[in-house]
Amino acid sequence: MRRSASIGVIPIIPFDRSSPVPFYLQIYEGVRAAITSGRLSPGQRLPSTRTLAEELQISRYPVFSAFDQLLQEGYLDGKVGSGTFVRYNIPDEVSRPIGARRPSPHTASTPVAEPTPRDESRQTSDFGPLAVNCPALDRFPSEIFGRLIRRHATAPYDLLAYGDPAGYGPLREAIAEYLRTARAVDCDAGQVLIINGSQMGLMIAALALTKPESAVCVEEPGYPGAKQALCTAGATVIPVAVDKEGIDVAALARLDSPVSLVHVTPSHQYPLGMSMGLARRLELLRWAGRADAWILEDDYDSEFRYASRPVGSLQGMDSDNRVIYLGTFSKVIYPALRLGYMVVPRQLVDTFIRIRTALDILSPTLPQLVVNDFLRDGQFARHLRRMRAVYVGRRDALLDALQQDAADVLTIGNTDAGLHVVAFLRDGIDDHDVVRRAASLGIHPAPLSSCYMGPGARPGLLIGFGSSDEPVLRSAVRTLAGVIRDLK
Amino acid sequence: MRRSASIGVIPIIPFDRSSPVPFYLQIYEGVRAAITSGRLSPGQRLPSTRTLAEELQISRYPVFSAFDQLLQEGYLDGKVGSGTFVRYNIPDEVSRPIGARRPSPHTASTPVAEPTPRDESRQTSDFGPLAVNCPALDRFPSEIFGRLIRRHATAPYDLLAYGDPAGYGPLREAIAEYLRTARAVDCDAGQVLIINGSQMGLMIAALALTKPESAVCVEEPGYPGAKQALCTAGATVIPVAVDKEGIDVAALARLDSPVSLVHVTPSHQYPLGMSMGLARRLELLRWAGRADAWILEDDYDSEFRYASRPVGSLQGMDSDNRVIYLGTFSKVIYPALRLGYMVVPRQLVDTFIRIRTALDILSPTLPQLVVNDFLRDGQFARHLRRMRAVYVGRRDALLDALQQDAADVLTIGNTDAGLHVVAFLRDGIDDHDVVRRAASLGIHPAPLSSCYMGPGARPGLLIGFGSSDEPVLRSAVRTLAGVIRDLK
Repeated sequence: MRRSASIGVIPIIPFDRSSPVPFYLQIYEGVRAAITSGRLSPGQRLPSTRTLAEELQISRYPVFSAFDQLLQEGYLDGKVGSGTFVRYNIPDEVSRPIGARRPSPHTASTPVAEPTPRDESRQTSDFGPLAVNCPALDRFPSEIFGRLIRRHATAPYDLLAYGDPAGYGPLREAIAEYLRTARAVDCDAGQVLIINGSQMGLMIAALALTKPESAVCVEEPGYPGAKQALCTAGATVIPVAVDKEGIDVAALARLDSPVSLVHVTPSHQYPLGMSMGLARRLELLRWAGRADAWILEDDYDSEFRYASRPVGSLQGMDSDNRVIYLGTFSKVIYPALRLGYMVVPRQLVDTFIRIRTALDILSPTLPQLVVNDFLRDGQFARHLRRMRAVYVGRRDALLDALQQDAADVLTIGNTDAGLHVVAFLRDGIDDHDVVRRAASLGIHPAPLSSCYMGPGARPGLLIGFGSSDEPVLRSAVRTLAGVIRDLK
Repeated sequence: MRRSASIGVIPIIPFDRSSPVPFYLQIYEGVRAAITSGRLSPGQRLPSTRTLAEELQISRYPVFSAFDQLLQEGYLDGKVGSGTFVRYNIPDEVSRPIGARRPSPHTASTPVAEPTPRDESRQTSDFGPLAVNCPALDRFPSEIFGRLIRRHATAPYDLLAYGDPAGYGPLREAIAEYLRTARAVDCDAGQVLIINGSQMGLMIAALALTKPESAVCVEEPGYPGAKQALCTAGATVIPVAVDKEGIDVAALARLDSPVSLVHVTPSHQYPLGMSMGLARRLELLRWAGRADAWILEDDYDSEFRYASRPVGSLQGMDSDNRVIYLGTFSKVIYPALRLGYMVVPRQLVDTFIRIRTALDILSPTLPQLVVNDFLRDGQFARHLRRMRAVYVGRRDALLDALQQDAADVLTIGNTDAGLHVVAFLRDGIDDHDVVRRAASLGIHPAPLSSCYMGPGARPGLLIGFGSSDEPVLRSAVRTLAGVIRDLK
């Protein structure tokens, strides 16, 4: 711990030169914690990067990186190198959205609908050009991963028996470490539960936290799998509109019925793609405290972020133990592995394990042993870096193709992260119809309207770029544009 | 199809010399179908084995085997070789239990309790002497199975993506064939869903078939995992007493509330071990028709039967599509594989797939590829035969040890099948206390009272013999007996 005396604006930044945590991350987290805890006041000037670097006796580079990330995420205002300030008057302005203030085209009033989502089944067997939720399996390091599978092909007897329903201990440790470092999740291994992909986490939370007397809220538009899990658990599901900053917390607060749980995708809103800014995050956490509600943070693909480093987790900002954090290896390894994880507030761990036991007792051991090695050998980090480069290339190719060959029929939305792009259709076009016709030609975008529960769905397409290489993407976009033009 | 004209008691036995189905099984199923359909009347004399063998132009041996099995299962009366008769007047006597009529020591009136089972958590992390539900992992053919895992360590890309949530097609085919042959299940591959062990099947059925206005019934005593799934799904669970024949159908029929689902273990009642006789099966099916209820047939370990061949499934007797059949590879391969299957009436298939998708989308692909090969290479059948011999030896060693070293403190129950034996304690002993003390010495029987929901639990122990070899069993029994004696 070092005390920054010279400038007076950073009361305490925990900093340890011998820690394995990168310098920039220590600084980022230290400043972020000082802001969210109120130790740094809104409007306060931060020390220059040079001053802070001298103070910490390190080069300026990690300080630059940390400040840049804090600017990206809306904690700071200004320009790195010429003066940075804490951005918001947190006590007074917490309920006002940050960032661009013009109304998002997707903002809608909050429809309170019956839990009758229209077409919730995700096209799980789809695998082909423009398919959503599918990673670059053609670039998967099969040989490396296969070697790890072979390594564990004959496991010791005790690993063949029923194991710990919370998951294989060493893997829980490895995941906790990864999440603390890469996602600023505040957790230890005892809070990590190994599950069969994030869908199971949605179901466990739905079964654990749904109460007969209260509703659960989802983003509108939002992830169909979440609604599916909540409805299956018997919950009354209320869709709440998102704007450019994510879920409309003011609309949440106006609901008549008590709310026990809200499902959000703060890193990368599904399906529209924006990330939730700092003020909205604080507003959401504060609302949850007032409403005595749980927040289910679904961090399904935050590893792939192209314009900036991944945004820290909402869970890491929560001092009230109200956030359940969900992640998966489906996008970063492969879907058929069926392995994911959830980080659970300590007071819920026993309940969640009991429900998981009722679901299917535990995850299979072999994939856990393999992924544990993959993480610990450093292969996982290398694989992520390689895949980010692959996806930047594929995304750029898709955007080029959309602009060149489909600009007359599709309007492109947010493209900063993830494995798909949203493109809007002209009002009046039935996106399910487009998807059916495209599927008959072997092309598999998903309908945006399936992500809506209430009225007011915008027609559009979720166009995946993860699973196909550039030439396939270009050709698929031309075919897709043709399908849409033929509808006119 | 051959018509047996000479004797007149077997109207039609489908028999095909060129079929891969063994002769004895064709005869067994033909006669069974004739009885359950009413084409063979109660009291009717069957042709002699010699006559039938001549009629079918085969040796007497398969006819002997078929009749022996039908006698074991209570379809026939008499003695093979000296005259056999259809055992029951099915139209008139269907509500009367067959077999030994003296009241079972386990018969109790039907307590209608709140769904507050006492200790439902199964000791999933227990692995050691006398542990229940654990197969002979020390005798598992790790090399053979490991070779299959290595074969699939690098799978084609399309098998890494989301696949069919119903499961890998070739495996569904292989399981359907296995179940038709070995368990007389009436199904095709389209009705087979691959799940993560039978526990997931319990949960899917619970979520699909629980209705707010009706109750679900379980056997008392019964399998704690079933109650756990049903309670988690929000069902009102009513325990119904079992007698020597299985669940008391008359008690089911007397219930005031409507019943949507009943969970039963007809092949091998969990935990007491008896199998449900023909009359009780028919009675149960008929009750389900009247009550418009579903039957969940949990066939968790029917492969291991020592006194006779496995009893045919209840599902195969059901002409009304009311039975959901559940099975698992946990006992016959290994628990940490997490692979099982359910056979679903056609009208429920889509609903069950939708719920399974909400739970965790699909089972991992790798274990499905491996088990598919294991089944199709014939290794599975070989493994089952070897394991039956291993378990007979271990069961006999356990029974010997219990008789020699624990007869003063434990009364042995049914021992014909499965991987555990029930042993009753003197009334007044707290079986949880025995289990705790035994666990502190590294021995892991389970408390019988955990299998009860209502009052009237008999104290006892479920003593597993699957996972330990003979010397370990003997020594563990001596230690266990000492623990119980010390309580006095």
